[in-house]
Parts: sequence; C-alpha cells; structure tokens
Amino acid sequence: MKPRRPRAETPKGFRDYFGAEVRARAAMLERITEVYHAWGFEPLETSAVETVEALGKFLPDVDRPNQGVFAWQDEDEAWLALRYDLTAPLARVFAQHRQSLPNPYRRYQVGPVWRDEKPGPGRFRQFIQCDADTVGAASVAADAEICMMLGEALEAAGIARGDYLIRINNRKVLNGVLESAGLLYPDDPERNAAQRGIVMRAIDKIDRLGRDGVMALLSLGRVDESGDFTQGANLSSEQQLRVLNFISLRELRDNFAALDELVGNSSVGVEGARELEVIADLLQARGAPGVIDPSVVRGLGYYTGPVYEAELTFETVGDDGRPRQFGSVAGGGRYDDLVRRFTGEAVPATGVSIGVDRLLAALGEKGRLAAREPGPVVVTVMDRDRMAGYQAIAAELRAAGLRAEVFLGGGNLARQLKYADQRGSPIAVIEGGDERARGVVQLKDLALGARLAADIASREAWTAQPAQAEVPRGELVPAVRAMLARGA
Amino acid sequence: MKPRRPRAETPKGFRDYFGAEVRARAAMLERITEVYHAWGFEPLETSAVETVEALGKFLPDVDRPNQGVFAWQDEDEAWLALRYDLTAPLARVFAQHRQSLPNPYRRYQVGPVWRDEKPGPGRFRQFIQCDADTVGAASVAADAEICMMLGEALEAAGIARGDYLIRINNRKVLNGVLESAGLLYPDDPERNAAQRGIVMRAIDKIDRLGRDGVMALLSLGRVDESGDFTQGANLSSEQQLRVLNFISLRELRDNFAALDELVGNSSVGVEGARELEVIADLLQARGAPGVIDPSVVRGLGYYTGPVYEAELTFETVGDDGRPRQFGSVAGGGRYDDLVRRFTGEAVPATGVSIGVDRLLAALGEKGRLAAREPGPVVVTVMDRDRMAGYQAIAAELRAAGLRAEVFLGGGNLARQLKYADQRGSPIAVIEGGDERARGVVQLKDLALGARLAADIASREAWTAQPAQAEVPRGELVPAVRAMLARGA
Repeated sequence: MKPRRPRAETPKGFRDYFGAEVRARAAMLERITEVYHAWGFEPLETSAVETVEALGKFLPDVDRPNQGVFAWQDEDEAWLALRYDLTAPLARVFAQHRQSLPNPYRRYQVGPVWRDEKPGPGRFRQFIQCDADTVGAASVAADAEICMMLGEALEAAGIARGDYLIRINNRKVLNGVLESAGLLYPDDPERNAAQRGIVMRAIDKIDRLGRDGVMALLSLGRVDESGDFTQGANLSSEQQLRVLNFISLRELRDNFAALDELVGNSSVGVEGARELEVIADLLQARGAPGVIDPSVVRGLGYYTGPVYEAELTFETVGDDGRPRQFGSVAGGGRYDDLVRRFTGEAVPATGVSIGVDRLLAALGEKGRLAAREPGPVVVTVMDRDRMAGYQAIAAELRAAGLRAEVFLGGGNLARQLKYADQRGSPIAVIEGGDERARGVVQLKDLALGARLAADIASREAWTAQPAQAEVPRGELVPAVRAMLARGA
Repeated sequence: MKPRRPRAETPKGFRDYFGAEVRARAAMLERITEVYHAWGFEPLETSAVETVEALGKFLPDVDRPNQGVFAWQDEDEAWLALRYDLTAPLARVFAQHRQSLPNPYRRYQVGPVWRDEKPGPGRFRQFIQCDADTVGAASVAADAEICMMLGEALEAAGIARGDYLIRINNRKVLNGVLESAGLLYPDDPERNAAQRGIVMRAIDKIDRLGRDGVMALLSLGRVDESGDFTQGANLSSEQQLRVLNFISLRELRDNFAALDELVGNSSVGVEGARELEVIADLLQARGAPGVIDPSVVRGLGYYTGPVYEAELTFETVGDDGRPRQFGSVAGGGRYDDLVRRFTGEAVPATGVSIGVDRLLAALGEKGRLAAREPGPVVVTVMDRDRMAGYQAIAAELRAAGLRAEVFLGGGNLARQLKYADQRGSPIAVIEGGDERARGVVQLKDLALGARLAADIASREAWTAQPAQAEVPRGELVPAVRAMLARGA
C-alpha cells in the first residue's frame, strides 16, 4: 500500500512571500526603523513563543479561553502560544529585565504575529507588525512623541504629508462619557462591563455601519446583510444620545469645551480631556498632522489612556472600479497596566504598531515602491564540460558589481533563454565551442528583445542596435555594462 | 482572592535579543544575503506554520511522532507545526508553485526555526537560519556553486579566507561503503536501516569522541561520562575497519583512488566518488577553499547526495582559558527526493543553511563586528511646560542627521544624566529657564566625561577641553557636531 502524498499547501490562512515583495517590504521597513532609531529607539527581538499566562487575554471579542491565539501544551504541561502582537511580549520583557534596561525604555520591533482567527480575503493568520513603544514615561508628551514619530515614519516610507492623518482619542474621555451616561461606576468597574463592551465595539464600527448602524447596536441590536443578529447594548435614548454626540465630535481641533460638556462631572473624563489638549498642543507646535477624534476606540483590551490611529486619506480605484479608501494603517495607545500584571508596580507605557502589509499595499497602489529590479545576467551553458569557464564568466561579472548566474538546469539554448526571460534577465551570455575557439562571447540583449516584441512600431528605430552582439571575451565586463546602459 | 501574577519569563529554551546584537546580526545578514542576491538568488519568506504532513519527519534521532517539533491540532483537527528548518518548507513551496516559479529556482530565506528539544547552554528552541538553495538543478555543478557561494558569503560577513574550510562528502559514497561492507542492500533498503543509523550517528561524532569512541559505537556500544550507555551497531571487525578507513581519509584533495577502493563494486558508491571529483575540480578551478572529507555526515534524514559543512578553523580562548574551536557554522547538501514527496515527480535540489547565532558569536570573538554605536544625544527636560521647545531641539538635531531624543521619564537632572550615561549618549543638552532667557544651551560632553573617569592620568591633558560648554541656541547643531568630532 502506497502512503498518501502530503498536500503541498500552506495551512489555511497562511501565505508565502516571494522575491520582489520581500525586497520591497524590507526596504520600506529599513526606512521606517531608521526613523525610530534616529528618535532614540533601540531594536528588540522577542521570542515568537510565550507562555499563555504572560500573553494574557486582550484580544477583542474573546470569549473562550485561548481563542484567538495558537496555543499548545508543553511536555511539562505548561501552555505555550505564538504571540498575537508585539506589545504583550514587550511588557513581559520589561518586567523580566527591568533591572538592566534603561528607564524610560524606548524600543522598536519588527516581526510576525499570529492570530487564530477565521481567515478571509486579505486577512491572514500570520502578519508582520512594526512597533515602537516607550515604557516608563507617564507623561502624555510620550504619546504625542509617538504620534509625531509615526507621521515621520510614514513619510519616510513614501506616504506624503497630506496623504495621512493621525487620529487621537483617549480611553479616559470615553470612560468619562460612559460614567456621565450612567454606564460606568468607578467604584464598581465590573458593573455594566458587558454593556460597555458592546458600546465600544459599536463605536469602532462607525466608519463601516454609519450612524444608523451604530444607533441600532446601542439600542436593541442589528441584523447584518447575511441575516446574523448582533445583540445591542440596550441603552436608554438619553444614553444613546450622549454616546452619539461624543463620536460626532470627529476631527476636533480646538473645541475642547464640547468634550468637557460630554464628560460632565467625571474626574477621569476631565483628566482625559486635558491630556488630549496637551497632545494637540504639542503636535500643533511641531506642525504635525493630527486631530482629536472621539470615534477612535482601538480593539485591544489593554489600553488605559490616549489611543491613536494613522489613517491614509487618499482614495484609490479598487478592482471593481469603485473608489476605495485604505483607512487605518497603524494604531496604538497607552497601556499603563500591562507591566503591572507581572510586577505589581505601575509602569506607564505607550506605543504604536504599523500594519506592514497594508502600508506596503498602499504604497504599491500609489506607485511609491521602487521599480522592479532586473534579474541577473544569465550565463548559458553550451558545453557541460566547460562549467568552470562559465562559472569564471559569472564571477567576473559579479566582481564588477553586476548580478550574474550560470544556468544550472537542463535543456537547450532556447530553454535557457526562456528561463532568462522568466527571470527578467537583461542579458544572456553565450559561449559555445566556436566562440571559445575564436576568443569571443555572444551577448543577447533580452531587455531590447522584450521592447521589440512589445512594440512593433519601434522595431525600425531599433534596427541600428542589434539585439545580439559578439564581443571579445576579454572585453566582457565593459560590453555588458554598455548594453545595460543602453537599456536603462 | 487575588489572582496569581503571571511570571515575567520567556518559556524554557527561548530568549530575547536586544539593541546592539539585533543591529549587528542584521548588518551581517545584509552582507550575506547581498552575496546570495548577486549570485542570482531571490528572497522567499514562507509561513512559520506548516501542516505536520508537509514538514515530514527528517529530524535526527526522532523516534516518537512529532518529537522535535512544536505541533498542535487546529479547530478542524488538522495538525499544524512550527517549521524546524527552512528546507522542508522550500520543498512544499516549490511543489505548490512549480507552475509559476522559474526552473531552476534559486532562493534565499532568513528566518527563525523552532525545535522542541531539550534546551542547554547556547542551545535554544528558536534560532535563526539563513539558507540558500537551488531547486531543479541535478548537476553537481549546483552543489559546487553553493559551496563557492557559501565561502564568499562567509568572507562578506567578515571571516577571512584561511579562517574557514568547506568540507564536502557524498551520501552516495557513504552508501557505497556501507554496501561494500554488507550493511546496505540496494534491493532491500529497509534491511539494516537501524544499524546504518547508528553508524551514521557514530561517524558524525568523530570530532567529539575520537577514533576510539567511534570504534566503540561501531561495535558493542559506549558508556559516556555521565554513565549513560549508547547501544552500538554490532559490526564485525572487517565492517568496522571499512568504515574507519573511510572516515580516516579526512581532507582528501586528490587521492580519489582510495575512495574507489573503499566503495568497491557499489555502483552508487562509484557514482558518488565521481561526483566528488567533479566538485573538487570546480572548486579548485575557482581557487575556492574546499576539501573532500568522508567524516561529514549531516544529521538530517533527507540528504541524498553531496553534503557539505563550513568549518571555522581558528581557535579562540574560552571562558575557562582553554583554546576553543568554533567548528561548523553552516551545512547543507543535496535532497533530490524532498519535492517528490508531494508531486511524485523527481525534482533535484541542493542548498546550505548558515547557523546565524554561531557565526555572529564567532565574528564577535574575532573582533570583526562593528564597534558599538553611541547612543542618542539626550535633550534633558528642566521645565515640563516647555516640552514643545525640547522636542524642537531634538527635531533640529535629527534633521541634521544626528540621533537625538527628549528625556521623557521622571526625575531631576542627575537622574536624567544617569539615564543618558546608561544609554551610552555622547552628549546631553540642557536648557533651563536661565539658559532660555539668555538664548543659550549647555552641552555636556558625556563621552569625554567617561574618558576622564576611566583614566585619571589623562585628566590634565583634557583640562583644555572642558566637559561642558555653553553655546548660543542658534548654534546648537554645529556645536554638537564639533563636540562629537572631538570624541571620535
């Protein structure tokens, strides 16, 4: 009996990244992290695997234990899991190494995170985040700094000033509004907790559902297009109005009196409004693009103060011909209690995470990625016994700073040229027995060939520049250089 | 009842990487992958998670199912696992995308791999590999190319020619020796399989156990220092002698007749010896440092032909004052059957993996890593209400290409200067109310301060260069530049 063959597939919701995309992403991350580094941040790489207890449960919409994370039990029966973000591991690192780390500790980290969620179009179970955080700074100047640095990082990546906006809110203001609406009692934080969860998730959906959809979720509930019912928060009309008035203050630049009115007597709400004013002032002083936006909630459960998002404000045309907005490409906030979980001591912290794949896609659509680089010069193999000679040709080209490889597969010249074509090679080098006897090589200008094939009209104009040239073996490097320059 | 606090610890066998080490590693990998890229290789990033069946079971010494890998069951009851190397995923990728990938497919990949093994000193359950492979090339010219490119990559990383050696063997020759010793029957490959496994693991230990230790493992078995007994292969004296004579041919450069004698009439053995001769010729033609070494086995179960290792040949002094050899920092080989597992069609492949942490450690001990870069200029905060002004100072310095940050923690000037010191900052900028009124800032030369503290004798020589200078606010950038130049 023959064993069944394994399927050659990534697990559901996972994907691979190839050549040009890997290089474009690496170049983008290099530009972003150099901004973080210039602002005094140091790199960190935490382990991908954490104990489940160290990660904690802060993912949105989590009801069942371990839902949302990939977890398994160790030999010692300890539960281990793949990190779902880079923030929870940072809190663990700071708690673990706090004696030796500087305080404040500014760090950046780039790496994959994993979520055991239902995959969908453009929604994967492994994705890359690029985070910058300041641990140990209680002042909202640290939040303001992260927002300013985020703007600079987006600009370094290729998003022009004016094509993005940093939207800032404060969980304290939100709590103030909930308190003044009778949905939060500071002395009894568990009371109405489930109801508040529904309210937060409803606010978070304002862009997608609009005012009416949010209103439905604040009252009895909502039936979506697929017929699924989402339970509402059962707020009274007055409570609904307070919440709706709050999130209607979008893109607030200076009308902080309106905020004050909505938080009423809530002391945490008043404190939050003052913090937002300080952040707005700091951003304005540096001319950084930011607005206060009460509809910004952020899904993760660990935020305690200012929360912020970077939104791309330009439209592109989607595959269906309709205008499409990219929306949020980065988000973060203050999480003053995350380190305390481990140590019992309060350690304030704030930071941001860039969604790397979304930002890269946005840059691609704006045409802000570097042009696809050409493939290597391909040295064809006409005589397998002369392999050392072909290797010498490729090595000479590489020593001159040119990308070059020897064809190592099987097949005749036509097959080899087809391969070179598929690689996007600009030039193929051909040296058969006849060429070797005469001390020459043939250079085939594949880039020119592609242009000729693409545009019959230009064929005559190119006649003066034949697509193939015979050059002395000793003049290989300058001849390849000249042919490359012609195509550039 | 208070819930127990989570422990702030990486899981057993995992670690974090901080600042300078992350940057040194990234710089090293950049130099290595640029060599791969110049040779025509394209980057690939596969998902960290694979199905268990796609990974297959090729780890050495694996008896129990899933031993050696971190695996868990999906919601759909499918078994998923973290990749244990970058080769098995490459075989899956090539099988999955073979219609669209060029053939041969040259790729490099850098990333973490995970092994559920007993951790030990310097032995972690997550580590980074840096691989380059050619899929679709049957010719041993591809193996020779990988060996030559590996040498060039090590030199690009900072290992001098002469400080490393590429050792090459061929599983076919090994099989030929086993066949001629009556331990392998080509028509019945399962016969003696367990015995051959013991022989391979014994050969692999020649450096650690020496000739006598290997001899014990080839005969009845061996008791190690801790008293544990390892079962031997129970070979006859003649069989033992054939194996020992084979691995005694170490650093073979041209005596291929001796190889031929040991493989006797085995056709696969003769073929393997011819392949080694071709590889040796190709390396010699390019002046690449490589030797044929029959003691090279490589642990992974999927190799089918040439196998190779890069060994560092220099000694360093260990913590105990004894000379210490680094040994192997990279290894690989040919695995012609790994893609066939998926597709049923033979797809030849060969490639190498660099142990990134070991190589980085070796470069560190040889003093070949870049000097530790200085920390950022720290702008101290003397007046919290003037935060925008301090941010402006830091922004000016960054705009001039200097790394700079505003201190965002709590504490007086002494605390802030202590922080700057811990960060390795070269300069602290101080602007209190008095300075602001006079339009000046103080620059504290922390690098000079450190030199003074370290060397009392030089104190007088430095007297002419005070460790603190008052400069006009408008001349901040040139003054900081001048102070940095003084310390360089």
